Formats: sequence, structure tokens, C-alpha cells
Amino acid sequence: MSELAHKAIQVCRDLALFSEEPGRTTRTFLSPPMHDVHRMLSKWMRRIGMDVSADAAGNLRGVRKGSTTRRLVIASHLDTVPNAGAFDGILGVVLGIALAEASSHGPTIEVIGFSEEEGIRFGIPCIGSRALAGTLAGTLDETILTAPVLEAMENFGLDPARLPDARLSPETVAYLEFHIEQGPMLESLGLPLGIVDAIAGQSRLALTFRGHANHAGTTPMSLRKDSLAAASEWIYQVEQLAIREPGLVATVGSIAVEPNATNVIPGLVRVSLDVRHSCDETRHSRAAEMLTAAEQICERRGIAFDREHRLDQPAVALDAKLRDTLARCVRQAGYPVHHMTSGAGHDAMILAPHVPSAMLFLRSPGGISHHPDESVIPADVDAAIETGLRFIQSV
Amino acid sequence: MSELAHKAIQVCRDLALFSEEPGRTTRTFLSPPMHDVHRMLSKWMRRIGMDVSADAAGNLRGVRKGSTTRRLVIASHLDTVPNAGAFDGILGVVLGIALAEASSHGPTIEVIGFSEEEGIRFGIPCIGSRALAGTLAGTLDETILTAPVLEAMENFGLDPARLPDARLSPETVAYLEFHIEQGPMLESLGLPLGIVDAIAGQSRLALTFRGHANHAGTTPMSLRKDSLAAASEWIYQVEQLAIREPGLVATVGSIAVEPNATNVIPGLVRVSLDVRHSCDETRHSRAAEMLTAAEQICERRGIAFDREHRLDQPAVALDAKLRDTLARCVRQAGYPVHHMTSGAGHDAMILAPHVPSAMLFLRSPGGISHHPDESVIPADVDAAIETGLRFIQSV
Repeated sequence: MSELAHKAIQVCRDLALFSEEPGRTTRTFLSPPMHDVHRMLSKWMRRIGMDVSADAAGNLRGVRKGSTTRRLVIASHLDTVPNAGAFDGILGVVLGIALAEASSHGPTIEVIGFSEEEGIRFGIPCIGSRALAGTLAGTLDETILTAPVLEAMENFGLDPARLPDARLSPETVAYLEFHIEQGPMLESLGLPLGIVDAIAGQSRLALTFRGHANHAGTTPMSLRKDSLAAASEWIYQVEQLAIREPGLVATVGSIAVEPNATNVIPGLVRVSLDVRHSCDETRHSRAAEMLTAAEQICERRGIAFDREHRLDQPAVALDAKLRDTLARCVRQAGYPVHHMTSGAGHDAMILAPHVPSAMLFLRSPGGISHHPDESVIPADVDAAIETGLRFIQSV
Repeated sequence: MSELAHKAIQVCRDLALFSEEPGRTTRTFLSPPMHDVHRMLSKWMRRIGMDVSADAAGNLRGVRKGSTTRRLVIASHLDTVPNAGAFDGILGVVLGIALAEASSHGPTIEVIGFSEEEGIRFGIPCIGSRALAGTLAGTLDETILTAPVLEAMENFGLDPARLPDARLSPETVAYLEFHIEQGPMLESLGLPLGIVDAIAGQSRLALTFRGHANHAGTTPMSLRKDSLAAASEWIYQVEQLAIREPGLVATVGSIAVEPNATNVIPGLVRVSLDVRHSCDETRHSRAAEMLTAAEQICERRGIAFDREHRLDQPAVALDAKLRDTLARCVRQAGYPVHHMTSGAGHDAMILAPHVPSAMLFLRSPGGISHHPDESVIPADVDAAIETGLRFIQSV
């Protein structure tokens, strides 16, 4: 392991100690320990000659002037989920500073630690990157900048009136985000790095199967309207449909049954459906097939079926040219090139419509994330740094 | 409708007003409103010349001496589930008194209103009928006669030391229980009455499917250990296996999923399984098949499976000779004869090993029971009374 990779991992572990909760890492948007994170990272950035400030959204921003005014933003988020690991988000910021330290010439580098991505504190994700995209300040969207959000900004010492100043510098020519994969794909393939081609679009639905609750002993099979049997038949079909479509994931993650008693036939079942794919058309058509399957199952069984669309978030393609650049840099650094889709949302999704954006995944051991056991392999961090150094020179 | 049927229904409706909760019928074992029920039924029984008492288990007992000492017990229970209807249990007691009023000669008739059948207050069903069977006093079973149960008896004014006196009179030659079906079979067949041949045996199991919780977006279908998909495949198979075995009912009534979040693949699923059939061998072999199916599904998916047997209650056959007698009486009264299995447990299940026992079901409109909408059809009550009068003369 290089000294720089060692340092990056150590800084991530040190930052994980700044938490709202003793004994575990929980650091939400503009919570008090975020001040400690800013202080520690600012000290490092200033030491290597970067110009450091916090914008009105609470994003920590460090600029290292380069030999050209062309600006490369390297960013990720500093907030965490409750009881988090040490690398989700943070690693992308720390790698940005490490790369600024290691690259003595090249473009101007701006490292940004977004104040908010997870959406834990106010249920609104990506507040930090939205400020850069100008979708916060531009529209002054009241569904995001609610009174409690504005109050949190002021309590942190920020001035919401200055949000427009948080926008991306017009000299920015590229956005690069390093992030742990948070999934098992790279590990299963034995690869350190993955180039993200697209961030999957997502459909979220809430479905209701309404049968008839009845006595489990006195109601013969032929006279039942068992909503759980119907939902189960459907959940199994959803899985089989998803397996047949490459790249698609479909999940029934939550279920609620009424009355949920051992000796009563379930009368009502509510389930969630989450469908993701890099192609919106594929996602829409497969989700529609799943709904048709539910309708057919319910019609055959005499059960009422209802659905509610909760989310329809389009897929975001990352910049084709930067994907090629990243692939070349990975190859030149001596690592195998692997392209993939991100099933999870990231800040790059917010920035991609505004600036050419690229994203590089690092393998997640055990696919574990959002958990204290979250980790990275030091050699993979080396690989990311080697790739990043080459990428900087190609901007 | 005969005047007697009208009266029986009216008394049931009046008794439903004696409740622990305002506005709905809830009357558990030895609760204060049980005193009111005793008072009202005692008044009626005394008026028609019956000798009335309460035994040490709180059962209300009225004896009408007959032309012989041969004794027919007609009984059911006076307690209810929370938010109950007016007929479950009560109707069987009220019909006993109505029959004693209407039959001027014949055997000695003892009408019993059991204090407890539903098992609501202490989680122990059939405390009333167990006292008659002597399985309470005989063994002084500490798992039933717990300190809170003894205290409840004393608070109601009973003397637990006298429980042995509650046993069935040795002159009892037959036990007869009228009960609403609490299921949809008779209604679906267009029949007023059903002769119960057996009370189904019951298996209850708790099953656990232990997969691996993971991110719904980043975990491809091929690398999932989705415990809900596994459980769903199995629940559907349970239903299909049950449909193929005549007379079998199998129910997955409760399910608990962890973490039960829209965007997380379910890691752990716990479900209940309830299997009932009149033949214990059939029940055991079908339940075993269901467990084998779960094992196979889980092995194929790499998911851990565990099961716990919670209950294995044998089926109880009712007396063959009395079944024939009941059938003859139903036919002589001018109604179609239909034999059936009770999927629910009843007091007759407790008495059958101790005295020749018979049970007659009355159609449940809509199959509804344990609900304020529970009802009976007056003409069906006529049919039960006509059948009962003939039965009394045949004892």
C-alpha cells in the first residue's frame, strides 16, 4: 500500500469518530460534529496550499489553483446514515484532497465535501450537490428549503441568502466522484474498480391486495380470499421476471399484513415494489409487466388490487467522453476495465445534467455498506489514486 | 319463525349488552358482566322449574329433572372474544334452556353455560369445560390453574377447593352442543344445519427464513439471498399443496420481515403455519410435505431455514351413535342431512373423551363470526329446535 492510500484510509477512520451518537458513526446534515469534520479537513487542505471555505449550503470547498483555469471538481458527501461505516461518501472527499496533494501540476482542482446526500435529517437527499447545480438557489424550491432546513443552516452559522454563490464555478469542465460500490458486483468479479456508465432510474410503488379475513380453521381452501397467498404468488413472479431482464433489479422490501394473526386468513396485504434499471424504457415496461401480473393473479382469485406510484426517477447517463477517459486511465494504471451501472443514487446524478461527470467505484468487501463493518481494500485505494492522478492530467 | 326461536334470538341479543366495554360486546372469563348473564339466565331457568347453581369454575348449571335419571347435558360457552357478535357460544346455552322449556317429558336435562372457552383473559381456552371433564380438578394442572386464574375465581365469589364437585354427573349419558358454524360451508351449500363428525386436529408452527439484507439498488438478482422471495415461493406452494388434499386447510396468517424497508432486500422473515384436518395422519404427512418444500426452496437459494412446532392437537371424533341419532332427528324434522368437520375447536372437544358427545352447527350468514355482524337465520334456529326436541326424546 502506498503511503497516500494508507493516509486516506486513516483519515476516513479518524473522521468516523465525529458523531452525534457515542460509540457509533451518525453524522447528519449540519449536525454539530460536521464542524469537527470541516476543521480537520480544512487543516489538511490549507497545509497543502488550498484555499478553503464553506458555502451557504454547508459544503466544504477547497481550491488548489492549477497551471490552467480549467477546473476539475472532485467531490462526494460528508454526511452519513445512522450507525454508518467510515467510507460511504467521505472516501470520495478524502481521495480528492489526497490527489490534490499528490498532483503538483495540471488543472485547477476543487475538492468539495457535500454537506448532505443521504437525506436522513429532513428526508430530502442531496441538498449539498443541489446547491452546486443551482436547483436549490435558482428555484428557491420550497419543498426543499423548508423552514426547518433554513433554520438548520442558520444554526450552523450559514447565510441562506448567499445560496446562489454556492453554484458551480463556470470554469468547471469536469466532475469526478469516487465512491465505494456499496454492492457485491466488483467483489464477485474480483475487480478493484468499476467505471459507472449510468445511475439507474427507479420506480417505487405501493401495492395493496385486499381479500377477506376469515377463520383459518372453518374456511375451506375453495372459499378463501387470502390476500397473503395472492401477494406471495406475485412476489415470486416479480423475482422471476426480474431475473430474466439483464441489469434489472426488483425488490419487495416491505410488507404489512392485516390482521396478521396465526389463526386468521390475511384480509389485507400492503407491499412496496422498487424497480431499477439503467434504461428507463426497460424499467417502465418491466414494472408494467409486474403490475399486469398482479392484476391477473388478483382477478383470478377475486381479490381487489390497487397500486400507487410513489417515485419515477429517470436514469442518469454519465458523460461518455469522461467514461472513456476514466477507462484509459484505469488501463494505464495497470488495472482491468469494468463498466457498470450504479443501482444507488449519488451526487453525480445531480451534477451530471450541469457539467460533464464521471464516477469511479471502489470494491466493497462483502458488499457491505451503511454498516460499521463497511470497509475498503488498501490496494483498491491505491488503484483509485493511480487512476485519479492520470485522470487529472487528462482534463 | 316459531315463538321459541324468536325468544332465543332475542335473549342472545339482550345478553350481548352485558359487556366489559361500552358500545361493544366483550365478556371474558369471570368478568363482572358475567354476573349479569348468570342473573338473567338463572331467572329464566328458575321460572321453568330448573334447579340452578354455579360451580367452582364459574359455569352456570341448570337441571330439569326428567322422567328418568338418564341425563343429557346441553351446553356451550358464555364468554366472548373482544368486540364479539351475539351468538358464538351463547346461542348453544340459550337453545338448551329453550329446549328444556319446550320438552315436558324425557330424560333429565342439564343446561350448562361454560364460563370460559375462548381463552382470551388468561390465554388458556376451555377452562369451563375442563372443570367438567375433571382434567382441571383431577390433575390440579398448574399450567391452567395459575395464581391469576385462582385469584379471578375467588374475586368472582367462587371456591377453587370445590372444583372436584364441578365434574360431570355420573348419570350423564350424552353431551349435545349447538354452535354457529363460524364458517361459510353451510351457507355455500344452502343448508341450515351441519352434523359435526369430528373436530379437526391442528398443527401450529413458527418458521424462519434467514437470508441476507442488502441494498435493493446495488445487489444484482443473482447475488441476492432474499428471505421474502423465498418465503413467498413457499407460501404459494403451501396453498397449492392444501388445495390438493380434500378437507385440509393450511394458513400462513402472520408474517414479520426485517428490516422491512422499501429499499432493503429482506434479510429475515418469520411466518406462522396453521394446518388442520380431521385425520391426524393426513395432517402430519401434509405438514411434513410443507416443511420439506420449505427446506428445498431454502437449500436451492442458500437461505437458512428453521422451524418450531408450537402445537400438535389431535383430531377429536364425536360419538358415532349420536351422530346417527342427530342425522335421524334432522331428517325427521324435515331438513337435509349434512355431515362435516369442525375446523375450529369447541367445548365438545374437551368432553368427547369423557362422555358420548354430539355437535350441531347452525349456518353462519356470510361465514361471519367474532365480529359484531355475526348473525343467525331465524328459520335455522327453528330447525335446530325441531332437531333438538327429537334428540331429547331419543336419549
